[in-house]
Amino acid sequence: MNNRIERVLDKMRQKGINQLLVSDPLSIRFLTGIYVSPGERLYALILRTSGQHTMLLNYLFYIEGDTGFDEVWFGDLEDQIEIIANNINPEETLGVDKTWPARFLIPLQEKLPQLKTVWGSDCVDGVRACKDAEEIQLMKEASEINDRVMLMLPDFIKEGMTEREVADFIDNEYLKAGCSGTSFPTIVCFGENAADQHHEPSETRKLKEGECILIDMGCVWKGYCSDMTRTFFCKSASEEQIKAHDITVEAVERAEAIIKPGTPIADIDKAARDLMAEHGYTKYWTNRLGHFIGQEDHEYGDVSPLNKGVCEPGMIFSIEPGVYIAGEYGVRVEDLVLVTEDGCELLNKVDKKWQIIG
Amino acid sequence: MNNRIERVLDKMRQKGINQLLVSDPLSIRFLTGIYVSPGERLYALILRTSGQHTMLLNYLFYIEGDTGFDEVWFGDLEDQIEIIANNINPEETLGVDKTWPARFLIPLQEKLPQLKTVWGSDCVDGVRACKDAEEIQLMKEASEINDRVMLMLPDFIKEGMTEREVADFIDNEYLKAGCSGTSFPTIVCFGENAADQHHEPSETRKLKEGECILIDMGCVWKGYCSDMTRTFFCKSASEEQIKAHDITVEAVERAEAIIKPGTPIADIDKAARDLMAEHGYTKYWTNRLGHFIGQEDHEYGDVSPLNKGVCEPGMIFSIEPGVYIAGEYGVRVEDLVLVTEDGCELLNKVDKKWQIIG
Repeated sequence: MNNRIERVLDKMRQKGINQLLVSDPLSIRFLTGIYVSPGERLYALILRTSGQHTMLLNYLFYIEGDTGFDEVWFGDLEDQIEIIANNINPEETLGVDKTWPARFLIPLQEKLPQLKTVWGSDCVDGVRACKDAEEIQLMKEASEINDRVMLMLPDFIKEGMTEREVADFIDNEYLKAGCSGTSFPTIVCFGENAADQHHEPSETRKLKEGECILIDMGCVWKGYCSDMTRTFFCKSASEEQIKAHDITVEAVERAEAIIKPGTPIADIDKAARDLMAEHGYTKYWTNRLGHFIGQEDHEYGDVSPLNKGVCEPGMIFSIEPGVYIAGEYGVRVEDLVLVTEDGCELLNKVDKKWQIIG
Repeated sequence: MNNRIERVLDKMRQKGINQLLVSDPLSIRFLTGIYVSPGERLYALILRTSGQHTMLLNYLFYIEGDTGFDEVWFGDLEDQIEIIANNINPEETLGVDKTWPARFLIPLQEKLPQLKTVWGSDCVDGVRACKDAEEIQLMKEASEINDRVMLMLPDFIKEGMTEREVADFIDNEYLKAGCSGTSFPTIVCFGENAADQHHEPSETRKLKEGECILIDMGCVWKGYCSDMTRTFFCKSASEEQIKAHDITVEAVERAEAIIKPGTPIADIDKAARDLMAEHGYTKYWTNRLGHFIGQEDHEYGDVSPLNKGVCEPGMIFSIEPGVYIAGEYGVRVEDLVLVTEDGCELLNKVDKKWQIIG
């Protein structure tokens, strides 16, 4: 754990930030092992390059034992903005992280107009992005469970079933495997529903012959997430659907082929996107190639042309191109990829080739 | 609906803000009827006193039909900060609401150093705080269901039951009544657990004679929340526990007695807090008296000494003092109160007198 804080302090020194306010409860858990769900109340870990760190805690938060940091406890009847102001140096730049809401940031800026507040989220999110051995182990276990449940689906899914029945089966298998739940609401889409990337499983929509079956699913195992997508076809598939699937798989593989330390993340997106463009799919796939993942399904960092970073060992992110034809069908194939010392490793192992089931 | 936006624009004019960025998905639902769960993606409604309003929407968001506003659609491959910058006037002050995270606010401030960003949340939260007739009706219905379920508990709860069994019973009754779920995870505490205000129902802790039973519960009915707390005793109660309960009920009643349009909200807190102090409970009750409620269980606004507002017709908030003796017991009594034209009305009706059950 302490090594994690040291890594954040190193990044702060590189950026010239001496004080960083960390508000994301999952970042605080990552750095301290302590988890609090603060709701609308102030909760923060203030990290300082001096090595003296402070936790801001409401009396209502329950924490077992000492935090090991300076603790400033306060109640609802105290001015929370004043608590923050009293625990930072207004003469120095204050880095803040991505989740800190305007409910604190704006009144703090209004109270201390001379304070310089800057983007400091990369200091902590950059460390969270590179998983350590313990985290990689848990991520692999989460993806092993995901593989096992995905492999049950070709036998389970039958023509006439509803999307909701399939989603319930998946959710229940996660619980039987000892997971605390899903890493996001399970996505099951038949036919034209697969073209809507935020479709919710329907209790009435029944699977018909010739339709695609898009399944995007992940579980939470000991606090870490898996996430994988596979697209099947019920009993038969049109040539057009098969071509879309083949090209999507090739796009995944082209992206994965170049992942190693030092590869610009934007280049990974480009490898997939160029292939999709060659085949005329540009207008049918407009979103990012992938996202970072760990304690949350969507952690900070996109795999997209906008990401200016490069691959570093320990990074884990998704690769998930797709073809979405509104009103007709959708295809998506998604892997989780771990950047290793000299290349990359897939966390999930289920074959990507299209499959006729049902 | 349009009247709601007009009320926000009036508050903006009073404050001298011509453009307000609303990011809270529940505020946007309140103002437009449209609900999107944006995750980490940009989603905003920009309100302007000119009457020309703009929604910022990612292609991934699904919205049925027109929004009725100017719509700016964008994809993951575009710079979201630039999208915001292009849709506000950098020469004018920009009000922002409470939930807008630093992931957008700080980069926007860094991109447009001349832009003045100020607290504008009160313009929309002040309107949300005063419920209209449709909302009041739904809040009453949510509290009627809460009353019905609470009234089942004296017969249901028996010595030897676990906290989890009682919580499951409550959650299940809500679903049977047609609710979409609980407005917060149901709180059931026996004995010393009642002194921890964030205690989670235990699967192993069994109810014993002489213990307090603190139940804090609420449901979501057609998008609106209820929230009520009652404390019972199993088979018997000590004089000390009964006194704590009697004084807590009296504190609730003293607070409720002064609620009418124009009453300073801080005075409501004071009415309860002074009585608790007279009886030596100051150190056993350190948090706010209550919170506003509506689409969320905790909406913006505390009933506390720090609130500088006054009661207005249509406001709905909780009144929930308590006595928490660490390691021994806890007592809390909570009502939801609606400010009417000439006083107030309790939304929940369950009697507050202490009761021996089990």
